[in-house]
Amino acid sequence: MGLLSRFSRGQLRLNRIEAFSDGVFAIVVTLLVLELKVPELHNHQSVSELYRRLLELSPKFLSWLISFIIVCKFWLNHHHILALARHADYALVWLNSLFLMFQSFVPFPTALMGEYPENPLAVSFFGCVLAFNTLFFMLLHAYILRRLLKPEMEGTQDPRIITKSFIGPVVYLAGAGMAWLNVHAAFLAYLLTPLFFITPPGPGPALEVTREVSEA
Amino acid sequence: MGLLSRFSRGQLRLNRIEAFSDGVFAIVVTLLVLELKVPELHNHQSVSELYRRLLELSPKFLSWLISFIIVCKFWLNHHHILALARHADYALVWLNSLFLMFQSFVPFPTALMGEYPENPLAVSFFGCVLAFNTLFFMLLHAYILRRLLKPEMEGTQDPRIITKSFIGPVVYLAGAGMAWLNVHAAFLAYLLTPLFFITPPGPGPALEVTREVSEA
Amino acid sequence: MGLLSRFSRGQLRLNRIEAFSDGVFAIVVTLLVLELKVPELHNHQSVSELYRRLLELSPKFLSWLISFIIVCKFWLNHHHILALARHADYALVWLNSLFLMFQSFVPFPTALMGEYPENPLAVSFFGCVLAFNTLFFMLLHAYILRRLLKPEMEGTQDPRIITKSFIGPVVYLAGAGMAWLNVHAAFLAYLLTPLFFITPPGPGPALEVTREVSEA
Amino acid sequence: MGLLSRFSRGQLRLNRIEAFSDGVFAIVVTLLVLELKVPELHNHQSVSELYRRLLELSPKFLSWLISFIIVCKFWLNHHHILALARHADYALVWLNSLFLMFQSFVPFPTALMGEYPENPLAVSFFGCVLAFNTLFFMLLHAYILRRLLKPEMEGTQDPRIITKSFIGPVVYLAGAGMAWLNVHAAFLAYLLTPLFFITPPGPGPALEVTREVSEA
Repeated sequence: MGLLSRFSRGQLRLNRIEAFSDGVFAIVVTLLVLELKVPELHNHQSVSELYRRLLELSPKFLSWLISFIIVCKFWLNHHHILALARHADYALVWLNSLFLMFQSFVPFPTALMGEYPENPLAVSFFGCVLAFNTLFFMLLHAYILRRLLKPEMEGTQDPRIITKSFIGPVVYLAGAGMAWLNVHAAFLAYLLTPLFFITPPGPGPALEVTREVSEA
Repeated sequence: MGLLSRFSRGQLRLNRIEAFSDGVFAIVVTLLVLELKVPELHNHQSVSELYRRLLELSPKFLSWLISFIIVCKFWLNHHHILALARHADYALVWLNSLFLMFQSFVPFPTALMGEYPENPLAVSFFGCVLAFNTLFFMLLHAYILRRLLKPEMEGTQDPRIITKSFIGPVVYLAGAGMAWLNVHAAFLAYLLTPLFFITPPGPGPALEVTREVSEA
Repeated sequence: MGLLSRFSRGQLRLNRIEAFSDGVFAIVVTLLVLELKVPELHNHQSVSELYRRLLELSPKFLSWLISFIIVCKFWLNHHHILALARHADYALVWLNSLFLMFQSFVPFPTALMGEYPENPLAVSFFGCVLAFNTLFFMLLHAYILRRLLKPEMEGTQDPRIITKSFIGPVVYLAGAGMAWLNVHAAFLAYLLTPLFFITPPGPGPALEVTREVSEA
Repeated sequence: MGLLSRFSRGQLRLNRIEAFSDGVFAIVVTLLVLELKVPELHNHQSVSELYRRLLELSPKFLSWLISFIIVCKFWLNHHHILALARHADYALVWLNSLFLMFQSFVPFPTALMGEYPENPLAVSFFGCVLAFNTLFFMLLHAYILRRLLKPEMEGTQDPRIITKSFIGPVVYLAGAGMAWLNVHAAFLAYLLTPLFFITPPGPGPALEVTREVSEA
C-alpha cells in the first residue's frame, strides 16, 4: 500500500482539528503583542521621553496591526473551508499542519519588519512568508473541494475559486517586490491584501438548523 | 453587491468563535504574569534583599491584578452577549476580532503602567486603551441586539443598556484624566471600574434545559 | 437588589467556563518551560561546559517538575468538581476566576524558587502562594456543593470533604515554614503534597452514558 | 483500598482531556517560534548584514521545523489513540499528563539544539528527550488498549502495535548516539523519524456517522 493511499485514509472528527487550529490562531494573535516591549526610560517620570519612545514604536504597532488582521482573516476563511468538509483524513490533517506551521511562524517576520521597517529585506521577507502561507491555505482549500466536499454542498462552490484566490499570493509578492523600491508602499500593500478575502467567497453551509440543535 | 451586504452574510456556528475568543482571553490573562520578572539579586541567599526587591515589584503586582480582573469581567460579559445571538455573520466576526485586538493588546499598557507607575502618560495610556476596548465591546453588543438577537429573547433586553454601558468608557477616561493630577487616584478608578459590570446586566437566556441536554 | 443576590443569578453553560479554564491550565503548564533558558556558553562546542551548565539548572528543572504536577492535579480536581455542578452562576464564575488568578500566577513563584533555591524567602513564597491557591479551590468546591450540586449527586458526596481538604494548605504552609530551617525539606514537602489529591475524593458522576451519547 | 485501584476509578468525559491536551499541543507548537529572535543589526538598513544574520539562524529554523513536525505527528497519533478509549479513568489522566509534561518540555531541547548545533551533547539531548516522550506516549497507548478499549474496537487493533512502536525511541536514541560522531547525521535522523508514524497505524473508529450527528 502506497504512502499516498495511506494519507487518504482516516476518518477523523473535525472538532479536534478545529480546536487545535483555533488554539494556534489564538496564540499567534496574542503572542504578537509580546514584540511590543516596554521602552526603557532614563527618567522614569518623564512624559516627553515616554511620548517620544512610544512614537518610535509606531512601526511595531503597525506591523502588529497588519498581522493581527491577516491572522483573523485566515481564521475566518479557515472556519469557512473546514465547514465544507464532511470529515477529515490524514492528508487534510497534514495540509492543515503545514498551513499552521506558516501561520505560527508569522510572529517572526512581523517582529523583523517592526524592528527594521526601513530595511527592504525585512519588509520583503514578510510578504514572501505571507505569500507561502496563503499558498498552503489554497492547497488545503483545493483538497477539501476535490476530495472531502459535503455531498449537499456540491455545485454550490465557485469552480474557479482556487484560481481567483491566487490574487492573495500575487499581491503579497508584489508587496515584497515593492519593498525594494519603497517600503511604505509595501506596508500599504500588506495592509490592503486581507481585504480581498475579508469575507469568505460564496455561500457556506446554512447553519441555522445546526445552531438550533447544538444550542438547545 | 456592496461591501456592507457582504458582511451581513454568513451563518457561522458560534462555537468556533467562542473557542477562538476563549483562547485569546485565556492567553491574555496568563501572559500578564510574564511581566513579573524574577528580580536579580547581588546576594542570592539574602532574604532582606529579596524582600526589598519583591516590594519594589508591587506596582507590577497591582497592574497585573487590575488587568486580570478586567479581562475576566470582559470574558463574562462576552459570554453573556454571545449567548444572545442566534448565529454569527461576518460583521459579528469582524467586530469580535476588533474587540479581541484591543483585548490582546492589554498586556502592553499593563506592563507600561507597572513599569512606570509614577509616569502620568503611562498610567493615562492604560485608561485610554481600556476605554476603546470597552467601546468596541459595546459595538459588538449593539450589533447583536439589533441584528442577531434570538427571537425568544426579544423584549427581555433593557432597551437602554447600550446607553448605560457608556459608564464604562467614561470612568476609564476619567481615570486617564486623573492620572495627570494623581496617579494613585487613577489606579483606584481602574480597580473600581470593572465593578460596574461585574455581573452582566439583565437576564440572559435560561440555559437549564440546554445543559441537561448537553450533559446527558 | 443586593450585590449578593446578583451573584447568585445567571445560568451559564459550563462548557465555556471549562474551555476558558482549560486554556489557562494548558498555558500555565506550558509557559513553565520558558523559565528554562538556554545557558550561554563561552565555547559553543564544549561538551563539558554545557554539561556543567545543565547541571546548574537542576533546581529549575525540579521547580518546573513540581509545578507541572501541581497544576495537573488542580486540573483533574477542577474537572471533578465542575462535573458536580448543574449549571454556573455569576458567583461560580468569579470564584473560578479568583482561583485561576492564583493558578496563572504560579509561573512567577516557580521561577523565583528555581532561580534562588537556597533563599528561604523564595522557597517559602512558593508554598504560601500554593496554600492560597488551594484555599480558593476549596472555596469553589464548597460553593458548588452548597448551591449548585446536581440533584442526582445529593448524598453521594462526603460531607466532611472540605474539612479534609485543609490538609492541602496546611502541608503547603508547613513546607513554607520548613524552608526557613532547611530548603531541601521544603522542596520535598512541595513534591509530596499533590499526592494527597492525586485522584479526586469519592465518586464523581457516572459518565458512561454521557460519553456514548456525545460520541455517537 | 490501594493506590492502584484508586487510579483505575473515575469515569471522565474525554472532551476536557482532549481540550487540555489540544491546548498544550497548540501552545508548544506556537511557542517554538519565540526561540527565533530578531537578530540585532549594527546598520539597521543593511540588506547584506540582515541576510547574513538570517543565514546564521538556519540551525534554529531547522530545529524549529523538526520540532513542529514531531509535535504535529504526536498530536495526530494522540487524537487516534484517545478515540479508541471508551472513557477516561485517573490512570489515563496521569499517563496523559506525564506524556504532556515531556511534550511541553520540547521547546527547551529545541532551543538548545538550535543554539549549539555543533555541540554533540546539545544535539544528543534532543534525541533523548524525544525518545522518552515517545515511550510515555506508548505507555498511554498500551494502557488504553488493555484497559479502556471500546468494545466495538476489539479485534481491530494490531496486537503487536506496541512492540512495533519501539522503532520510534530506537531511532531517536540512534540519532542521539550518532550526534557524537556527526551532528548532521543526527539532524537527519530526527527529521526522518516522524515519518514512521506520519499516519496512525491501522484503522481507527469509523466516524462518518458521528460527524453527521454532531454537525446537524
